[in-house]
Amino acid sequence: MNIEMIRAAARRLQGFARRTPLLSSPFIDELAGRRVWIKPECLQHTGSFKFRGAWSAVSALDPETRAKGVIAFSSGNHAQGVALAAARHGVPSVIVMPADAPTLKIENTRALGADVVLYDRATEDRDAIGAALADARGLTMIKPFDEPLVIAGQGTAGLEIAAQTSEVGVTEADVLVCCGGGGLTSGIALALEADAPGLRVRPVEPEDFDDVTRSLRSGRIERNLATSGNICDAIITPQPGALTFPIMHRLCGPGLIVTEREALQAMAHAFLRLKLVAEPGGAVALAAAICRQDQIEGEDVVVMISGGNVDPDLYSQCLDTLP
Amino acid sequence: MNIEMIRAAARRLQGFARRTPLLSSPFIDELAGRRVWIKPECLQHTGSFKFRGAWSAVSALDPETRAKGVIAFSSGNHAQGVALAAARHGVPSVIVMPADAPTLKIENTRALGADVVLYDRATEDRDAIGAALADARGLTMIKPFDEPLVIAGQGTAGLEIAAQTSEVGVTEADVLVCCGGGGLTSGIALALEADAPGLRVRPVEPEDFDDVTRSLRSGRIERNLATSGNICDAIITPQPGALTFPIMHRLCGPGLIVTEREALQAMAHAFLRLKLVAEPGGAVALAAAICRQDQIEGEDVVVMISGGNVDPDLYSQCLDTLP
Repeated sequence: MNIEMIRAAARRLQGFARRTPLLSSPFIDELAGRRVWIKPECLQHTGSFKFRGAWSAVSALDPETRAKGVIAFSSGNHAQGVALAAARHGVPSVIVMPADAPTLKIENTRALGADVVLYDRATEDRDAIGAALADARGLTMIKPFDEPLVIAGQGTAGLEIAAQTSEVGVTEADVLVCCGGGGLTSGIALALEADAPGLRVRPVEPEDFDDVTRSLRSGRIERNLATSGNICDAIITPQPGALTFPIMHRLCGPGLIVTEREALQAMAHAFLRLKLVAEPGGAVALAAAICRQDQIEGEDVVVMISGGNVDPDLYSQCLDTLP
Repeated sequence: MNIEMIRAAARRLQGFARRTPLLSSPFIDELAGRRVWIKPECLQHTGSFKFRGAWSAVSALDPETRAKGVIAFSSGNHAQGVALAAARHGVPSVIVMPADAPTLKIENTRALGADVVLYDRATEDRDAIGAALADARGLTMIKPFDEPLVIAGQGTAGLEIAAQTSEVGVTEADVLVCCGGGGLTSGIALALEADAPGLRVRPVEPEDFDDVTRSLRSGRIERNLATSGNICDAIITPQPGALTFPIMHRLCGPGLIVTEREALQAMAHAFLRLKLVAEPGGAVALAAAICRQDQIEGEDVVVMISGGNVDPDLYSQCLDTLP
């Protein structure tokens, strides 16, 4: 992995992925006790940053291989990113999803043109199903985070952050990134190392699913005890990736941890002050900016809102946290 | 009013107002039966396009006059726009608001630095209160729409629409604009006349508050029977302005009318597909794109989402319209 791969991804994404703006609000600044710069990837195509990595990977395939189609495992945002990237390249996609994934996400993935194959988490082997389909149809697997082309795609958000913070005169700041397997976090860290070395990435995770924070502290890959049972589903993974962890270990500051309640409150602030719809996993970085001020350094902080694919029922819960 | 005033406003707004992006979603395209390009002014500072006009007017005052401060009447978005524009110029602002305005909007306006003066709609004369304050303190009145500098500021959104549609290859389309007094509508119409003559503005209004639609049809200014009692409060005005109407009459296509229910459903689509928080009055143009397809021409349509300042309770109602 290196910066040239991210710059190459940025060239492939040009005109296809969205250059999301850098937003701010005096109300959020006051809540956080410093200037807060918001990078709203919930406004990216398919409602999350995942489209960047998916497009990066699909667009880099040689046309003959690509024409056979791609396959991915995902219960959520990666699924939609791969489905749309494949559809816009005019090639088939198969997404292997757990049968108990949210109906909306299954329907969206189908509506974006994917062939959705459901499996039973309890009784069926996802990897075996995927391998059989890939073999039979010559599909290329697009991994969700531990894949150089995907990391490079997510890193394009970091190139934009470097350029946009420079435009507003910010050269030193912590950059809080919602972190699951570390594809977005490591990609942004590599981009900032090259283009904005005064900006330091800090992964943010939900309480009890702090594998990256613990891994950064111990210096080796640590696992989560559970991989479900938290509203921040989009960023719950078993452990950091074999490719992403060494990058994060070399470049990132200490992790930050927030509660589900704090994530819900951050969603409400995004509603009220930014007019952005954030999902719980996409709001943990904003939650950390507001609730972990004493663990953050500097006068400015950059906050990634990584996704906005949230069901209406859960969204109503976040509104209920408002006074 | 002419295009040079809008270009001058754009120069004054440069670096202070936000250049909002142009968004889209394949799901919205499908709902609307054509390609839909969204201009999300809910992402503008203070959560609505009103900051553009307010900044345009405040920044154009000569410094000595400006230093004495500004005054505005508003129960909502114009109040917040003027308050922030004044605060960022370091000058005082007085906002005369009805005592029964939403608490949140009163609090926001105060938090943005304004001196809020409340009056009783039933028993007190707003204009007399405003005139007395303006005289006593030498304040300059910033009118909400029927003021050339304000129209010029709102028109800067039109310059951006012209540039952004050109970038995506759209040269002919209806441009649906949420319309109250007509400041935004007439400003955009003037900008497009100059920079994108294939784009035609269509005002969109709530049912029973269709003064502009009727005025365009009859060729003279028509009044609404009521000026309250609709969830689209941000765009309810007694009648089109003396300055804005002739511009709209010369340049705009026929008005479009939507119901409150359709506005709520459009808010829900913006939530689900665009990850944007829209207020009812800010969602009527999207509602028209979806529900008045047969009254719109062409393969592409541009939709202004003009604001996102909505109370959580009302927002929950829009989520309830989802299946």
